[in-house]
Amino acid sequence: METRVLEIRKCILNKNDEIARGLRLRLQAAGLLTVNLVSSPGTGKTALLQRTLRTLREDGSSPAALVGYLETDNDARRLAASGVPVKQINTNGRCHLEAQMISDHLSDWDLSRLDYLFIENVGNLVCPFSYDLGEDLRVVLLSVTEGEDKPLKYPNIFNSADVAVITKIDLALACEFDIETARANIQAVRPGMQIVVTSAKTGAGMTEWLTCLADQKLARCATVGSR
Amino acid sequence: METRVLEIRKCILNKNDEIARGLRLRLQAAGLLTVNLVSSPGTGKTALLQRTLRTLREDGSSPAALVGYLETDNDARRLAASGVPVKQINTNGRCHLEAQMISDHLSDWDLSRLDYLFIENVGNLVCPFSYDLGEDLRVVLLSVTEGEDKPLKYPNIFNSADVAVITKIDLALACEFDIETARANIQAVRPGMQIVVTSAKTGAGMTEWLTCLADQKLARCATVGSR
Repeated sequence: METRVLEIRKCILNKNDEIARGLRLRLQAAGLLTVNLVSSPGTGKTALLQRTLRTLREDGSSPAALVGYLETDNDARRLAASGVPVKQINTNGRCHLEAQMISDHLSDWDLSRLDYLFIENVGNLVCPFSYDLGEDLRVVLLSVTEGEDKPLKYPNIFNSADVAVITKIDLALACEFDIETARANIQAVRPGMQIVVTSAKTGAGMTEWLTCLADQKLARCATVGSR
Repeated sequence: METRVLEIRKCILNKNDEIARGLRLRLQAAGLLTVNLVSSPGTGKTALLQRTLRTLREDGSSPAALVGYLETDNDARRLAASGVPVKQINTNGRCHLEAQMISDHLSDWDLSRLDYLFIENVGNLVCPFSYDLGEDLRVVLLSVTEGEDKPLKYPNIFNSADVAVITKIDLALACEFDIETARANIQAVRPGMQIVVTSAKTGAGMTEWLTCLADQKLARCATVGSR
């Protein structure tokens, strides 16, 4: 019985991968950088995104966001206050987003008018890792309040990410968070991964984070352009 | 395809429920109170458990613990330092524990010599909610670092729990955590649920938490005894 579930789940994953591939091409053709934010609940995905959207908009960029949630729409409302296009995706209790959900929620947006698409995944360090959403960049958040051991305990999600963002660094002292241990643990799981240390509250690290996004966008456009 | 997965998953859940029912009877007959701890990663399940096991042991009780994990055995080693029987359960990447895993890992323990069994579930606020592990008491942890909105965003797990433990209360000020809002959100999802406010670091609330466990054990024994 278990084997059968796994087989069928594999089919669904393959189907998801197919949809994700098509979605990625469509998003890249429109010139967007697509960023999938994954983390535990409560690491500050929404707070980081809120500040990111506001700053990008002030700098003349055109970002948009899709927010996966199980029940409430608090996050979407918080993000909509940034004045950028934001839509919520109700997963109906499912513990992750899938590529089809992303595709469905883009149907009435003019992608050519956007240049960044952020996807806030469901707060879950386990299940979202196997679902490609057509993103260019998977960013895993690690809050200082969670402890330095999380990369070792949830290696799949860290291993599948392109960038790690350490959040709430303003609380590091109160939480006795040892940043060097955290860095070593991230590097042990995903050698060479870029790590950006931030606080959405104080603004620490936001310039580095926005530069990281801009660099990735530039690199992506160069790659797509040269095809 | 999706429907078929759901149907098969339902069968597995029913199978799990069956095993959980048998397990519960076996554990209750042995006079144990079984506690299933569920929460996000990094809320301090291990820290709370460490302090709980040590105190119970000093008070003359005989607790034991099973720890679910995806990869590392750090938690089991931390808990074993309390000098009580501890075993780790490797879920092989699965995002939750199941009743059969609990049953398998109890086979060489003399249950009649124990009086509390704690199960530390995989850090995940979504998937573990539908898996009965044969516990008497499901306890959901909410760390002050996660924010007050988590009960509203993950209602299923809060709704299926018997007791809520707010952890890391020593960090409430630094995290600008509003405990009254958190209480109201928990009560909105699960009216009347007991809420215990703790800090495994300072020891705040530990007496109330241990009293809660003792009361539940007494109530359980009375119920089982009267059958």
